[in-house]
Amino acid sequence: MPKIDLDALEPTNATGYPPPYDADVAGRWQRKVAEAAGMKALGARHVVLEPGAWSSQRHWHQSEDELLVVLGGTAVLVEDDGETELAAGDIVAWPAGVADGHHLINRSDAPCSFICVSAGTDTGGAYSDIDMKWTAGGRYVHKDGTPY
Amino acid sequence: MPKIDLDALEPTNATGYPPPYDADVAGRWQRKVAEAAGMKALGARHVVLEPGAWSSQRHWHQSEDELLVVLGGTAVLVEDDGETELAAGDIVAWPAGVADGHHLINRSDAPCSFICVSAGTDTGGAYSDIDMKWTAGGRYVHKDGTPY
Repeated sequence: MPKIDLDALEPTNATGYPPPYDADVAGRWQRKVAEAAGMKALGARHVVLEPGAWSSQRHWHQSEDELLVVLGGTAVLVEDDGETELAAGDIVAWPAGVADGHHLINRSDAPCSFICVSAGTDTGGAYSDIDMKWTAGGRYVHKDGTPY
Repeated sequence: MPKIDLDALEPTNATGYPPPYDADVAGRWQRKVAEAAGMKALGARHVVLEPGAWSSQRHWHQSEDELLVVLGGTAVLVEDDGETELAAGDIVAWPAGVADGHHLINRSDAPCSFICVSAGTDTGGAYSDIDMKWTAGGRYVHKDGTPY
């Protein structure tokens, strides 16, 4: 059945971020939609941010496009040039290779839910505010390449 | 600015479908989100279906994943096994290569809006209810390969 039954997907707040960067995403609960649907070219996750939670460390992708649709609640989008309020129905898109890091922060007192989709080959990317980047293999390293 | 300003994007009801198949999608108004955002790996269109309009002829993709999020209104999803009601917040996903055609029909008396995203290489696909398929070049042909 192509309609996604979110209740049937186990949410996880797991992260590979090394401390202390993992704490900011502890209230981020993800459901693996693409895997549940059997999709391989398209990435898709349903995400709930608890109050205070971040969607990720502020980052950008070298070679993956990303798009997000807010489904409920509100969040603040943070980028180099400042902040943008997002609410249900808003669509935000980040083409691959634009070195302007982004993430969402839920500063409200209610959950914020969204779906995030992506396409392209993950060759790595970088975090804007911390000494961290990731490699084509998804490994987190310092910006000089030394491992965490 | 990554937040998509839908009002700044011109909607189009253009279609390459040959008659009489074009009539069913005359009330389908699309905005090219991926192109506006500068994305190449990820396809994204915002679609408004007027009452009575179809999202497409019922079809499936050989090698592209497709995912749709309903933003407002209601529509009926039609597939081989029957119909499913969709409403705002519903997420529907179709992995590449599954030969079960799908489309949405707006049987309500209000517009239905959704965003549709895709990824993969378009090598063609087929329509379930009519004598038509499309080729890797996006050309519409009869199922025996003769052109329209």
